[in-house]
Amino acid sequence: MMSRPGSHGSCPVPVHSAERIEIGHGGGGKLTQRLIDTVFRPAFAVSDEDLTCDSAAIGRSEFELAFTTDAYVVQPLFFPGGNIGSLAIFGTVNDLAMSGARALAISAAFVIEEGFAVTDLNRIVETMRDAASRAGVRIVAGDTKVVERGKADGVYIATSGIGEIGSRALIRPQEVRVGDAVIVSGDIGRHGMAVMAARESLGFEPPIESDCAPLFGPVSALIDGGIELHCLRDCTRGGLATALIEIARCADVTIAIEQTKIPVSGPVRGACEILGIDPLYVANEGRFTAIVAGGDAERALSILQRHDDAAAIIGMVGERDGSTDAKIRTIGRTRALDLQTGEQLPRIC
Amino acid sequence: MMSRPGSHGSCPVPVHSAERIEIGHGGGGKLTQRLIDTVFRPAFAVSDEDLTCDSAAIGRSEFELAFTTDAYVVQPLFFPGGNIGSLAIFGTVNDLAMSGARALAISAAFVIEEGFAVTDLNRIVETMRDAASRAGVRIVAGDTKVVERGKADGVYIATSGIGEIGSRALIRPQEVRVGDAVIVSGDIGRHGMAVMAARESLGFEPPIESDCAPLFGPVSALIDGGIELHCLRDCTRGGLATALIEIARCADVTIAIEQTKIPVSGPVRGACEILGIDPLYVANEGRFTAIVAGGDAERALSILQRHDDAAAIIGMVGERDGSTDAKIRTIGRTRALDLQTGEQLPRIC
Repeated sequence: MMSRPGSHGSCPVPVHSAERIEIGHGGGGKLTQRLIDTVFRPAFAVSDEDLTCDSAAIGRSEFELAFTTDAYVVQPLFFPGGNIGSLAIFGTVNDLAMSGARALAISAAFVIEEGFAVTDLNRIVETMRDAASRAGVRIVAGDTKVVERGKADGVYIATSGIGEIGSRALIRPQEVRVGDAVIVSGDIGRHGMAVMAARESLGFEPPIESDCAPLFGPVSALIDGGIELHCLRDCTRGGLATALIEIARCADVTIAIEQTKIPVSGPVRGACEILGIDPLYVANEGRFTAIVAGGDAERALSILQRHDDAAAIIGMVGERDGSTDAKIRTIGRTRALDLQTGEQLPRIC
Repeated sequence: MMSRPGSHGSCPVPVHSAERIEIGHGGGGKLTQRLIDTVFRPAFAVSDEDLTCDSAAIGRSEFELAFTTDAYVVQPLFFPGGNIGSLAIFGTVNDLAMSGARALAISAAFVIEEGFAVTDLNRIVETMRDAASRAGVRIVAGDTKVVERGKADGVYIATSGIGEIGSRALIRPQEVRVGDAVIVSGDIGRHGMAVMAARESLGFEPPIESDCAPLFGPVSALIDGGIELHCLRDCTRGGLATALIEIARCADVTIAIEQTKIPVSGPVRGACEILGIDPLYVANEGRFTAIVAGGDAERALSILQRHDDAAAIIGMVGERDGSTDAKIRTIGRTRALDLQTGEQLPRIC
């Protein structure tokens, strides 16, 4: 896409708004060139230099590097609060942020369906540009392939990211200790329910917007605030419950959370009740859980509340309790949380 | 895939050979966990550490970094000489090599079609492991998504790579000078014709095998040999002709090549003649063109011939000749080469 074929002196022929993607747009010849010149290049504002090489030079780094990738196949492509483009950028930025890493460069590979409207592609690419700008990261490398009509549901996007780990402390499940506090950075369940509502044309009132957002801001505030951070995890596929279960398994502890402390907005709670879905398992794209030293919990919370006043301390890390990874206390009873077998909401990201 | 969900102490349930991918394998829950434990983890031999985080830590680097990405949608998935897995690994390694960069780490994002045979996925993943080992690079991060039956043609793979640029000299089209020599690293047209033959069940005798291979070896031999390297380009989509045209446009020169000097094997030449295809435009996955200072041409050739005795000096860089980017001389006439408009062989990589 951006790397090759390269830029050149000819005047690009404008892509007309009614134009649709053809198989030849992925062939590496004149049509690919035109797509790059008219869609990708203006939005991503890459240099001629980046455009003329097979890979992008991104300079040196004095930091430890982190590397991540994700494929995005969300349906529908557009939903309240975002689209597949913002999801792809923020998702990658957030995976890096969960290691305490600031995103340095992002790559994006597109698999586009023949017949896809160029106007829709433009909207997605412009959203990616805006998302990257908001997250302070450059999209430096790309690729475009085109597949036949009926494949790829419009477009799939795979993004990868390189990040710089500034913090000296290890942030990973293995660092979690008994007595640590469990914090969630905001109210949960928005992204999954927003996509579900868009897909099934459910007219929730008020409409639920995805929480899709970059998370390095609050993460770096915790680091800069000197919080003893043990683990961070974004609550994407599988939601908050899955994130906590995975952390507990790695750390060989049991995490206990309180039902009443988990922030869920009224509209999300209502929608989940109607559909019989547990918000603990619903995907988020702008929320994370932070496991911090118990003594730092209140200070960490106040830092996070500056970014989102719904942030809350929701539980504690305890000694391992048999086979229970995570449990939730409601009034009158405690139940174990477990990984779900199938997919509650397929194609959510 | 490898990053999350994390590893844990439970015994993985073996995936049976007759098993097929279900939508739930992409859901982030138990089925995803099982796929990681039984397919991806054994093949990629990633550490528990890598498996428990959202991104992989890849250490520090003292070098300039290069970054690249490609999506692979080749059809059929398996062809003589390789499959989509080797293509994805070597393709990414080679994009980095063309900047003079040694691949440091690779990520792989899979979009898998519901119903895809786990045995086929295993074959692909094992091929990726072997290809990465051959290229001396680690696959450190991954992701798996599953889409409904009828989408994704079995599997699409997007790989990204980070590389270290050891050479101090800039290797890019802008460095190309009048008087430089144009070298091709081996015989051309194998990959495209091998995929075409597999797709159309054309029984060429002898069968044509893809040239799919890692290219950092010969590239580093040129660098270590002190060759004044100006530009490198792998001859993938669009073939050797497209690579030369793009270089010439960037460098504002005209590249002239000699028909008789271009190495094409007998079987490829025969197949191209039967199908009416120009081998200059056929995709390669293990061949590159090197533009080197004229005085270093013979020495560069002898270095490349140690890797592939079909390597050849095929032409020269000249002053820009009007609108002609590249031209080819045959006995009796010279014709201009131009980018193709559509796609000669769709879904070739």
